Amino acid sequence: MSDMSKVITCRAAIAWTSNAPLSIEEVEVDPPKAGEVRIKVISSGICGSDNHILDGTFKTPLPAILGHEGAGIVESIGEDVNSVKPGDKVLLIALPQCRKCDSCLHAKGNCCLKEDIFSPFGLMLDGTTRFTCKGRKVHNILGTSTFTEYTVMHEISVVKIDDDAPMENVCILACGFPTGYGAAVNAAQVTPGSTCVVFGLGGVGSAVVLGCKAAGASRIIGIDINERKFEKAKALGVTDCLNPQKFKKPIQQVIMEMTEFGADFTFEAIGTIDTMVAALESCNMSYGVCVIIGVAPAKSQLSFDPMKLLSGRTLKGSLIGEYKIRDDIPLLVDNYMKKKIDVDSMITHKLPFVKINKGFELLRSGKCIRCILLF
Amino acid sequence: MSDMSKVITCRAAIAWTSNAPLSIEEVEVDPPKAGEVRIKVISSGICGSDNHILDGTFKTPLPAILGHEGAGIVESIGEDVNSVKPGDKVLLIALPQCRKCDSCLHAKGNCCLKEDIFSPFGLMLDGTTRFTCKGRKVHNILGTSTFTEYTVMHEISVVKIDDDAPMENVCILACGFPTGYGAAVNAAQVTPGSTCVVFGLGGVGSAVVLGCKAAGASRIIGIDINERKFEKAKALGVTDCLNPQKFKKPIQQVIMEMTEFGADFTFEAIGTIDTMVAALESCNMSYGVCVIIGVAPAKSQLSFDPMKLLSGRTLKGSLIGEYKIRDDIPLLVDNYMKKKIDVDSMITHKLPFVKINKGFELLRSGKCIRCILLF
Ligand SMILES: NC(=O)c1ccc[n+]([C@@H]2O[C@H](COP(=O)([O-])OP(=O)(O)OC[C@H]3O[C@@H](n4cnc5c(N)ncnc54)[C@H](O)[C@@H]3O)[C@@H](O)[C@H]2O)c1
Ligand SMILES: NC(=O)c1ccc[n+]([C@@H]2O[C@H](COP(=O)([O-])OP(=O)(O)OC[C@H]3O[C@@H](n4cnc5c(N)ncnc54)[C@H](O)[C@@H]3O)[C@@H](O)[C@H]2O)c1
Ligand SMILES: [Zn+2]
Ligand SMILES: [Zn+2]
Ligand SMILES: [Zn+2]
Ligand SMILES: [Zn+2]
Repeated sequence: MSDMSKVITCRAAIAWTSNAPLSIEEVEVDPPKAGEVRIKVISSGICGSDNHILDGTFKTPLPAILGHEGAGIVESIGEDVNSVKPGDKVLLIALPQCRKCDSCLHAKGNCCLKEDIFSPFGLMLDGTTRFTCKGRKVHNILGTSTFTEYTVMHEISVVKIDDDAPMENVCILACGFPTGYGAAVNAAQVTPGSTCVVFGLGGVGSAVVLGCKAAGASRIIGIDINERKFEKAKALGVTDCLNPQKFKKPIQQVIMEMTEFGADFTFEAIGTIDTMVAALESCNMSYGVCVIIGVAPAKSQLSFDPMKLLSGRTLKGSLIGEYKIRDDIPLLVDNYMKKKIDVDSMITHKLPFVKINKGFELLRSGKCIRCILLF
Repeated sequence: MSDMSKVITCRAAIAWTSNAPLSIEEVEVDPPKAGEVRIKVISSGICGSDNHILDGTFKTPLPAILGHEGAGIVESIGEDVNSVKPGDKVLLIALPQCRKCDSCLHAKGNCCLKEDIFSPFGLMLDGTTRFTCKGRKVHNILGTSTFTEYTVMHEISVVKIDDDAPMENVCILACGFPTGYGAAVNAAQVTPGSTCVVFGLGGVGSAVVLGCKAAGASRIIGIDINERKFEKAKALGVTDCLNPQKFKKPIQQVIMEMTEFGADFTFEAIGTIDTMVAALESCNMSYGVCVIIGVAPAKSQLSFDPMKLLSGRTLKGSLIGEYKIRDDIPLLVDNYMKKKIDVDSMITHKLPFVKINKGFELLRSGKCIRCILLF
């Protein structure tokens, strides 16, 4: 056994419980088992989903190391790992692509059956964890865990990218960017000249805006209760910014009046039931398409009169923008490097990893679009 | 003014109130106004939606003349009517195609803004009605009203068909057949080799089955609580028939086990919230498409955890199979006449118009697939 198969001791941010700050601790990171990869994390975004876990609305087992939007360098690999080798630049993604399951084999499926998103155990597929802190086992999250100097992931969730990719920024391509951009170009298939409405102008919503713009939308209405988001949103391509709290009528009614017949495409990138219903009702009754991206609080119910669909509306959900991650994300990275897609403009803040709680504070207060942690 | 512009006195079935038999009465049918067409009805199907109106779950103003699946011959036309002339064979359809509104002008829209389906007034577009019975004004229904020897409709809901179309049977092409068939081929775009589940094996569900089969589905699971439907369903192409009342587990779980990962396409052709949820949950979490066709009781709410969508499911509604009626239905009639589509096998009963209550009884008891009234 080489040196590489040893336990690594490093720093990680531990979420001991929900609704409390993360604490930077010394952790032991086990070597990767078969099919696993140990990665030195270089950068990680903080995504709205991490915040949902911390505030308890998205239930995953704690204590855990959060973070699922990372870029790093492969440190070592377990047996039977073929797609990456030590030294490779990689993205660390919450959704695997095993290439063998029913969903991976289906042309239109990207929800790999090896995912740990929908009933999360916070463990590797063998039911154990690679993290220990103060003698206690610590869960991973969504098979990723990027808020640590070293992590262990399944090969199927690790995406090899170009050696020259800018490692400080490219982490955004592991979740926020493809989630939003793909919701527009893959899930909704936004058409040229169309009117789009984006609910939520955070990291994911901003990427939706970029996708709508790339697809040729001629009007992009952005909705947020935090008006601080509006300047950036306009720079990205939003044509009209609305704060629902400034209207007496429901925002769907305001949008109906603005657009006469409703939008062609609407996107929910917040994660509340009310805004999901508003997004559905804001799209055209006959040909409108509404894409749900936000993660609603655990066990909540989306309720609406099904007659709203009968007239022809389409309602769909979209996970990481419907990308098959290992096939498609490297191409997005290439396009980013060729400056065909503008990922950098989503990044408003960078902080050293140890300032992670400040990063969450920026997200919660809406002062950032995406804040990146550097390790 | 010619003779044709006179009031016609004829027989019609009046729904005075809900939850009561229809009564055959003498009615006066006014001449058509501008943009309107008076039609001698030759045949009419009885659709589940008529029954929903009678049992009060689908609210439309009464008293009314129901029926919206008709075939007939143009008797006279009002001013500015160009697409049909007296003597033309036509279908009488609940959904107009004005060719001018936002929805008609959109490639993917068929919910013409002149519809009277979603908040029905039971009146012509000028706010009046052409029917009088015993001195009382009687509403029309969905701009159609076929349970009468003569009716008046807007030109935009009248579809000219081939002069040689078999008028006794072709009425099924005015609602039940295109609704089901189009849900499969247009809304869901069923793919060859796919697994489909059809909830409800009545008239509309049977047409869904025909559409799935035409699109090359290799497995078609049919669901109905009335096992009398199973023999016919199998003849039409259903491979497995299930009665949900025969299982202890929810039917969606049974389907999941039968199909391993859920169906590719599911269709709700009943009109209850429970079966809509079951249809959604029966389709594959990653790439499944669920099409809602059934009309749920007024003001009911479809409720489900939005995480069911996030994995990639698509939920959509479909009105008259997404056909643009005046453009597309004549082609369906041609295909029917060329025996490319098997409409006749949906027709299990024919009755003289005056036996209409018997026809409703056949529908409610599930003894018929489609029963046609002949005038
Ligand atoms: N489907 C996926 O694959 C996927 C991937 C990543 C994130 N997500 C989800 O997407 C959502 C957005 O994530 P993010 O990283 O952009 O978060 P974010 O916090 O950066 O953005 C959320 C935005 O919504 C705004 N907002 C909050 N409540 C609002 C309301 N009631 N009305 C209008 N605006 C409101 C906030 O001000 C903020 O600008 C989250 O629910 C997250 O869990 C889903
Ligand atoms: N979207 C449209 O454009 C459109 C057009 C026509 C009809 N519809 C609607 O489609 C639905 C079906 O119409 P139809 O004419 O076929 O009616 P139908 O009465 O012929 O068929 C309904 C079938 O559902 C079965 N059923 C009833 N409850 C059930 C349950 N709980 N589980 C399983 N099966 C059950 C019945 O036994 C029957 O076979 C109705 O809701 C109707 O209003 C919609
Ligand atoms: Zn994320
Ligand atoms: Zn897989
Ligand atoms: Zn009908
Ligand atoms: Zn129209």
